[in-house]
Amino acid sequence: MSETIRLAVIGGDGIGPEVVAEGLKVLDAVLVGTDVSVEKTDVELGADHWLKTGEVLADETLERLRGFDAILFGAVGAAPGDARVPSGLIERDLLLKLRFSLDQYVNLRPSLLPAGVASPLADPGEVDFVVVREGTEGPYAGNGGVLRAGTEAEIATEVSVNTAFGVRRVVRYAFEQAAARPRRKLTWIHKTNVLVHAGRLWKRVVEEVAADYPQVTVDYLHIDAATIFMVTDPARFDVIVTDNLFGDIITDLAGAVAGGIGLAASGNINPDRTAPSMFEPVHGSAPDIAGQGIADPTAAILSVAIMLETLGQPEAGARVRAAVAADLSTRGAERRGTTAVGDAIAGAVAARAQ
Amino acid sequence: MSETIRLAVIGGDGIGPEVVAEGLKVLDAVLVGTDVSVEKTDVELGADHWLKTGEVLADETLERLRGFDAILFGAVGAAPGDARVPSGLIERDLLLKLRFSLDQYVNLRPSLLPAGVASPLADPGEVDFVVVREGTEGPYAGNGGVLRAGTEAEIATEVSVNTAFGVRRVVRYAFEQAAARPRRKLTWIHKTNVLVHAGRLWKRVVEEVAADYPQVTVDYLHIDAATIFMVTDPARFDVIVTDNLFGDIITDLAGAVAGGIGLAASGNINPDRTAPSMFEPVHGSAPDIAGQGIADPTAAILSVAIMLETLGQPEAGARVRAAVAADLSTRGAERRGTTAVGDAIAGAVAARAQ
Ligand SMILES: CC(C)[C@H](C(=O)O)[C@@H](O)C(=O)O
Ligand SMILES: CC(C)[C@H](C(=O)O)[C@@H](O)C(=O)O
Repeated sequence: MSETIRLAVIGGDGIGPEVVAEGLKVLDAVLVGTDVSVEKTDVELGADHWLKTGEVLADETLERLRGFDAILFGAVGAAPGDARVPSGLIERDLLLKLRFSLDQYVNLRPSLLPAGVASPLADPGEVDFVVVREGTEGPYAGNGGVLRAGTEAEIATEVSVNTAFGVRRVVRYAFEQAAARPRRKLTWIHKTNVLVHAGRLWKRVVEEVAADYPQVTVDYLHIDAATIFMVTDPARFDVIVTDNLFGDIITDLAGAVAGGIGLAASGNINPDRTAPSMFEPVHGSAPDIAGQGIADPTAAILSVAIMLETLGQPEAGARVRAAVAADLSTRGAERRGTTAVGDAIAGAVAARAQ
Repeated sequence: MSETIRLAVIGGDGIGPEVVAEGLKVLDAVLVGTDVSVEKTDVELGADHWLKTGEVLADETLERLRGFDAILFGAVGAAPGDARVPSGLIERDLLLKLRFSLDQYVNLRPSLLPAGVASPLADPGEVDFVVVREGTEGPYAGNGGVLRAGTEAEIATEVSVNTAFGVRRVVRYAFEQAAARPRRKLTWIHKTNVLVHAGRLWKRVVEEVAADYPQVTVDYLHIDAATIFMVTDPARFDVIVTDNLFGDIITDLAGAVAGGIGLAASGNINPDRTAPSMFEPVHGSAPDIAGQGIADPTAAILSVAIMLETLGQPEAGARVRAAVAADLSTRGAERRGTTAVGDAIAGAVAARAQ
């Protein structure tokens, strides 16, 4: 029985296409000799595409993307100084619109410091946790507005929208993750002492879902305290669940702690499979180093591993992870280029085949 | 001409009264031989007080507090497990109510790693910045609510309220701080690519105020990127200005980077002097170590230094800082108790007097 993964590839802007190319190279290598094949379709989107065509994300493009099994996403966003691209336009109307429209309510962001990788901020082996970040509501809902814009009487609001439905499904997913891991520990993060309405809803739902997982230990941290623990004691974390904004903050910090943001991979997952999931490095388009062939493709390659795991190919995913870990443990002070890293990992994956 | 500071002292809960006592000890020591005296009045407030009397913060108490020149605040909050105290009640209806009612719109939180103080997270001397955190609006405004509470259809909202008035006054204060410091650099932090309404208001106001301070260099960071820089390159920061929630997060992380939260001091300042300012350590009531005489009083003592500076006694403030820095540089592995640290710093302050 053979299987074909129909994959949409959105390289995007800056270093996005460069790192995605290495992810695809490793994907091809890991599938050699398996009964799984991949059918790739490039989809042009991002700031450059918008400047060329005026399209941020057309309805037809969104419909077309729904037809794929998965999306591999590089990075989007113009250079900070580029006045032609309104700030946040591409992030919101493309990236966030994809996450919301495709109901990717789990933003899965694992942090693992493999043996041999030096981090000034943590001992190797100390970091092994996964953040389950809510992806479709909270402060990212896009609610809010402005009155008397541009005047001295201006008022601007941002509304965080939290529903029992939305919180429950992501919390349940996090408990499933925790139950399947050796330490079986779940930490939920919020700011319940200040944001009481959302905080009470999160607390109730966590407690209700916890009743179905007596084997999972649950604890709670305010977001401010969580950032301290992230740098002083990352080993205390196993599975973290939190809202969209707190998750954004804690995963960037986690990236810095776990070997740098160049290693941080993620999946925007629709666990109900009503639409494709999307896999992307946590880093941005880094316009300052684009086109130089020096971007680290590791996060994109690890995003491919998450993709394989999500699509029911855990062995292929594990082979990618093992090849990345082996490569990381040999990295010295010398900097290899983007292609060299991709070649090395693809080679290691191939050597591990069958 | 002699002057009397009428000081309200709210020790609060847990380690609050213990660390405040050392702050007062140092305050007395630094004022010996000056023409400034201090008249202290204890005001009982906090979780314990509420359990005993049912008062969180009565209108009359608030009115009484308005009559003082300043408030020295320890910490409030019951033990996390204490089911008698509703979560967040004391924090919101006492601490935040004081900050809001007394219009303490500047929450000033300096981070300084004095020579000789080891931090696993930063080189000594590398950390010298001050966070100006907005204190009276934003996500802390207490707006929001809940529909269909306790049901599967529950919706909970939190509204961040931002006004041109509120943003401008705190941004202007931050520019004043930056202009008075050698590096003259201001970094504003937000999440403008997602929280567009508030983000646009902040951006407009920062740019408008910046026009009055051509000597100050301005840059911007998203909150997620800011947490990375805080741990990888804290030396890049000079003055930071941000909203209430981002300021809460970044100052806890800054505390961890700059020698630990036991050193983090703050002022809740009403620069217009329409009501007293309030000075408090950033740490909480730490019920787990309360009553053991082991809490580090340094943050409370440094809060006294900020108080002296704010009340127009910069020399006395500088003497406290110098005594703290000297004490920190001699701290070894052995842990001294709360009183011993206070005695040492008070002694050093007295020795510096003439
Ligand atoms: C680009 C931005 C909208 C995005 C987010 O905030 O989610 C990014 O920071 C991330 O973490 O994936
Ligand atoms: C106790 C809490 C309400 C408070 C805050 O969030 O402001 C604290 O974390 C702080 O930073 O002073």
